Amino acid sequence: MTRFALTVEFDGRPFMGWQRQTHGPSVQAALEAAVLAVTGDAAAVHAAGRTDAGVHGLAMRAHCDIAKPIAPFRLMEALNALLRPAPVAVLACEAVADDWHARFSCIGRSYEYRIVNRRAPLTVERGLAWQVPQPLDVGAMAAAAAMLVGRHDFTTFRSAHCQADSPVRTLDVLTVEREGDLILIQAAARSFLHHQVRSMVGCLALVGMERWTPDDVGAALAARDRARLGLNAPPDGLFFVGAVYPGAA
Amino acid sequence: MTRFALTVEFDGRPFMGWQRQTHGPSVQAALEAAVLAVTGDAAAVHAAGRTDAGVHGLAMRAHCDIAKPIAPFRLMEALNALLRPAPVAVLACEAVADDWHARFSCIGRSYEYRIVNRRAPLTVERGLAWQVPQPLDVGAMAAAAAMLVGRHDFTTFRSAHCQADSPVRTLDVLTVEREGDLILIQAAARSFLHHQVRSMVGCLALVGMERWTPDDVGAALAARDRARLGLNAPPDGLFFVGAVYPGAA
Repeated sequence: MTRFALTVEFDGRPFMGWQRQTHGPSVQAALEAAVLAVTGDAAAVHAAGRTDAGVHGLAMRAHCDIAKPIAPFRLMEALNALLRPAPVAVLACEAVADDWHARFSCIGRSYEYRIVNRRAPLTVERGLAWQVPQPLDVGAMAAAAAMLVGRHDFTTFRSAHCQADSPVRTLDVLTVEREGDLILIQAAARSFLHHQVRSMVGCLALVGMERWTPDDVGAALAARDRARLGLNAPPDGLFFVGAVYPGAA
Repeated sequence: MTRFALTVEFDGRPFMGWQRQTHGPSVQAALEAAVLAVTGDAAAVHAAGRTDAGVHGLAMRAHCDIAKPIAPFRLMEALNALLRPAPVAVLACEAVADDWHARFSCIGRSYEYRIVNRRAPLTVERGLAWQVPQPLDVGAMAAAAAMLVGRHDFTTFRSAHCQADSPVRTLDVLTVEREGDLILIQAAARSFLHHQVRSMVGCLALVGMERWTPDDVGAALAARDRARLGLNAPPDGLFFVGAVYPGAA
């Protein structure tokens, strides 16, 4: 039995999310079907994070255990051939120690959120960004973002369906930058609550629209009350971009 | 009657190309249907360039004549509302002089071609880039590109269906740059022959794969013979990115 670590890219548009579902396609089910076809064994594929329907992955990390002897490169090529036409691709594959776990070994996760700030609807980027027609004040958004960085009780920014034991998280990075019409929001933490990034982005957008002040975001955080959430941003603009593990992996 | 200049973005994947066709959807027909719905008048929409099936536009310039009095901003908003769900959007709209012509007044056109150089199939960028699995030598591609810049007879790089009177064009810019897995090729000229950019990119890719030398590209150019073309790159990676007009417009 060998454990393989995978780096996976996927377009979230056709999926119900990462996790296997009875009611629709998932990234996990697509990968598990490909693993079964390659190896003849049903093996679970575990990911660093479980993304929601419509959320994308540029470098999701995952692992699975495979009994059949196979070289990592051959496994990657076979999975990619079998994943077609699903928009899921294995970018990298390596054999790792048996105790390496994509989710439990992960000590850092990062997301990118893309807002296209213009009146015209999206074409090429449809489903790959959040189109916000009102001009957004990125300086105010960055000031509000700074109020969320650090160790806080993020109950306000947590889905009612969140299964985490504690609402306390340490947000290491939350930056907002503009490149023309594109506004890029980067977020990094050891782990996130369910809907946390989208909830934070939604409130930052309210600040950008001048419907909220940066202090309103601080007050919403301090309230620790989901009812104080201003806006949950749509999944379209959210990309899982990286996972960090101890040592080299 | 007022002439309006439009800046149009479109995702080329569902279209037979820019130009109106009897056998399938086109960007032009989508825009003309929207103009008709807004104004009640059938008006032709003329573009700076006619893109092929599957080719995208980030800032195509076009114009149309409209009798009904309407402010440019209102026209843009109405067209965008009526274009849905087609992946075509009007990014800008302005009233221009009656003799301003999107095609005939245009003195410069630029394209970008995107290659994703990796073994894994595309997911998020499927249809929006050319995936080339062999590692490409970008330095050699840039050297070959330099041999095509200038005033030449581009017969080798011209589609058999090209309707231009002369195969002579002056290529002002042809650059090749790598950003990680992404290889960006920029091309600019007063005008291009049919398939010229895709034909040039195809030959540059052969150089990147070391199947051709840069001198082979020069020899193919000098041969002025379509049969000497090495490879025509697919439309997926091609984007019309800009048009230049005399003065401010």
